[in-house]
Amino acid sequence: MSGRDFLAMEDWSPEAVDALLRLALEVKAGKVRGGLERKVLAMMFLDPSLRTRTSFETAMFLHGGHAVVLEPGKGSWAIETELGVVMDGTGVEHIIEAARVLGRYADALAVRAFPKGNDWEQERADPIIHNFARYCEKPVINLESVRRHPCQGLADAMTLSEKFGGDTHGKKFVLQWAWHPKPLPTAVPASAAIAAAHLGMDIVVARPPGYDLDPEDHLAIRSLAEARGGSLTSSDDCEAAVNGADAVYVKSWGSLDHFGRPDQERALRDQHREWRMTEDLATATRDGRGIVMHCLPVRRNVEIDDAVLDGPNSVVIDQAENRLHAQRALLLELIGS
Amino acid sequence: MSGRDFLAMEDWSPEAVDALLRLALEVKAGKVRGGLERKVLAMMFLDPSLRTRTSFETAMFLHGGHAVVLEPGKGSWAIETELGVVMDGTGVEHIIEAARVLGRYADALAVRAFPKGNDWEQERADPIIHNFARYCEKPVINLESVRRHPCQGLADAMTLSEKFGGDTHGKKFVLQWAWHPKPLPTAVPASAAIAAAHLGMDIVVARPPGYDLDPEDHLAIRSLAEARGGSLTSSDDCEAAVNGADAVYVKSWGSLDHFGRPDQERALRDQHREWRMTEDLATATRDGRGIVMHCLPVRRNVEIDDAVLDGPNSVVIDQAENRLHAQRALLLELIGS
Amino acid sequence: MSGRDFLAMEDWSPEAVDALLRLALEVKAGKVRGGLERKVLAMMFLDPSLRTRTSFETAMFLHGGHAVVLEPGKGSWAIETELGVVMDGTGVEHIIEAARVLGRYADALAVRAFPKGNDWEQERADPIIHNFARYCEKPVINLESVRRHPCQGLADAMTLSEKFGGDTHGKKFVLQWAWHPKPLPTAVPASAAIAAAHLGMDIVVARPPGYDLDPEDHLAIRSLAEARGGSLTSSDDCEAAVNGADAVYVKSWGSLDHFGRPDQERALRDQHREWRMTEDLATATRDGRGIVMHCLPVRRNVEIDDAVLDGPNSVVIDQAENRLHAQRALLLELIGS
Repeated sequence: MSGRDFLAMEDWSPEAVDALLRLALEVKAGKVRGGLERKVLAMMFLDPSLRTRTSFETAMFLHGGHAVVLEPGKGSWAIETELGVVMDGTGVEHIIEAARVLGRYADALAVRAFPKGNDWEQERADPIIHNFARYCEKPVINLESVRRHPCQGLADAMTLSEKFGGDTHGKKFVLQWAWHPKPLPTAVPASAAIAAAHLGMDIVVARPPGYDLDPEDHLAIRSLAEARGGSLTSSDDCEAAVNGADAVYVKSWGSLDHFGRPDQERALRDQHREWRMTEDLATATRDGRGIVMHCLPVRRNVEIDDAVLDGPNSVVIDQAENRLHAQRALLLELIGS
Repeated sequence: MSGRDFLAMEDWSPEAVDALLRLALEVKAGKVRGGLERKVLAMMFLDPSLRTRTSFETAMFLHGGHAVVLEPGKGSWAIETELGVVMDGTGVEHIIEAARVLGRYADALAVRAFPKGNDWEQERADPIIHNFARYCEKPVINLESVRRHPCQGLADAMTLSEKFGGDTHGKKFVLQWAWHPKPLPTAVPASAAIAAAHLGMDIVVARPPGYDLDPEDHLAIRSLAEARGGSLTSSDDCEAAVNGADAVYVKSWGSLDHFGRPDQERALRDQHREWRMTEDLATATRDGRGIVMHCLPVRRNVEIDDAVLDGPNSVVIDQAENRLHAQRALLLELIGS
Repeated sequence: MSGRDFLAMEDWSPEAVDALLRLALEVKAGKVRGGLERKVLAMMFLDPSLRTRTSFETAMFLHGGHAVVLEPGKGSWAIETELGVVMDGTGVEHIIEAARVLGRYADALAVRAFPKGNDWEQERADPIIHNFARYCEKPVINLESVRRHPCQGLADAMTLSEKFGGDTHGKKFVLQWAWHPKPLPTAVPASAAIAAAHLGMDIVVARPPGYDLDPEDHLAIRSLAEARGGSLTSSDDCEAAVNGADAVYVKSWGSLDHFGRPDQERALRDQHREWRMTEDLATATRDGRGIVMHCLPVRRNVEIDDAVLDGPNSVVIDQAENRLHAQRALLLELIGS
């Protein structure tokens, strides 16, 4: 394992995260040039990406470095991720060799690996990202694993801080569940809530019954929020929760209670198709001007209505832009010269 | 929409196009270094590419910039291109967000999106490229849409100008239809004819009955040709048309009369399998030395015979090379410092 | 054809190979900066890659250049590789145009094309890589063809030389066949043996009956080994062969006697599932400290046991790292300024 990975925001001290966020603002203001000359970032996408890939590739280039983008199973070899197996199946390259070899070519390794959807008790240990970190000699960056999407979290924290002029303490942050045709992972909602917790906000998780986050994540969010002067509550009344909110983070995720049983999960989820960010809901935020956030990609008129996405409350494009600046800061911190 | 996109050659004034072509020749002569330092081009390929991708990626690099290559539906998210839809189907990311977000990361956005082959009346409006241009804050470059392939057109105009020493006025340019196992789009033939029209050439479209270009394209070619001192006629006699030609642009395209009805179209197309550039036809050009052009990829011995492609009339490799130089000029003009 | 390609190590004079290996060590020691400014390498992968792609892309970047990565049939057009055909089938772009055009955009072209598995008598002529070399005006680099993987061979020679302090003459090099669920190509074992031959080692090919390399390859290895003061023998007794070895190169390959008849080949191969590098075998090497090599990707506990890969004999990660340095030297030699 390297001295320093970025697998989850809460792995770093609050002071280190605050320093990163300050550097991100300086980078965005154009105050930092270079710093990654002759540096290589190897990116391994076991799942698709648009923002993550483009923003990291751009981040490396803007500071003089280069990102190599690998897609195992497409142009690259299929990766075997279990330890100790007899590899006589479909996996061609073991995670141990991939991690070790890429650590020799590159200065940092970034990995995206979504859950596979079989057994939450196994998957929640997030073995792929942790094994890459274990076997790679260089810093490993989590591009979204089963449990965390900390680069999204960084951009979210940066956006919240910008939009509230640095004064996020005691502001109401609603994580609003939304219906979606598929049961999505919980990495983004957990990471967004951790970002809000880091900022000392009063967090409300608004979700239908059966859609609680993993208990360990819930505890991590609450501990951090309380340590930073905020709070965490839950609600199954979407309208009441959004009422007076300073920020509403809309996001869909699947029920962990029914993880690995898609038909059951679907039956439960389809009872809540009305959970959606509408213009009426946006108007119900504080003074009608609460910000509406989403990590993207967003299903228009399913998760958030056109009127909201194209209206004044939405900050989703600023959020996406901040991925670039937050990651420039992260790369400078991890491997900058 | 940005101040300046490059969606079709005729969107720009003839003077602006002439300036681009002059810059392309200077670039090719090695007279222009740098100019794209710290600039990023995001390229989105909804369809495959070899020349376009390699030449743009090389163009950015040679002047100090960087191209990010995205392939939605492969490594990137599937793009929903209709406006106002309820996104509960297969599209994961909407074109509006893709355009807006990439406009934040990159200095220009380049998009390839071929026709889907269902309904010409809908597709001829070329909604994908126009919506990217509408929603992206930065210049958008058309890498081949339903109706136009203006970067190919630029390279074609540059090649014609080079081969005729700048004296293209009144030269005979034949756009020769060829048989092909598939009904190909009309973007390239329309753009090649517009390039010849820009150069004031006398254009003959040689095609079998039922293979006219879109009437609006025909009109655009004729208007521009006449304004620039040239002309446009059509012929269904391939040999007569090619006779005495100064340049023959060989290209296959599908019948728009039967667009969306592949069996009917195939039955019509298969009556014209003999439409092919042969050594005899090449010999029938002016003094046997008329140039033979093709945008590539070319089906050997189907569209053009080996003897022609490997013989002295062919300029197809020079044409392909000029993609690089024409695009270097375009990028310097659009986003150069 | 260009003045100088790198299609097989033995195409170059031993002196030229020695010079490359010396340059690779200097590069690895950090003594060579730049040299590839404004240079472009076009890489065409007809088959997957992790190390080759990442190491070449990194190599170009580290010296100021850029690699363009193309994957025909995925994001790029499907390539037709036969000469003289009427292209009315699935191939969209002919190898002649691909080679010629990429030679205009790039300073060198690198190609990976594995065997297709139909007819060894046809495939052993290695037509794809040779046709790319024939039609491309720029240097062509073999990224693994039917018969050779010379960049792997370079890295192998560099690793052997490093591990034995430059004193490889007369050392025992065992090429140990291993079982694998699929019949793999022979390019790597042939190239590894040629690398050992270049170093004047005493080579033993340990393989079950029916698993001889192509007779022409066998002859090439023996000629080179003898010319360089080494030797070549074969054995069907794995344990006896490995006993006292200085280096064991573990690799699986399919029986050429049954090439194109997968059921027959499988029946033969499955009789030899015990051919595997175990801890016991590793202990039987010279003083228990013989080095264990593999080109990667490796099937853990199928080709080599976990205990060996994670133990002190294994040099597979160093081998993979040396791909980078050997290729930096190769690129500097071929296209460096």
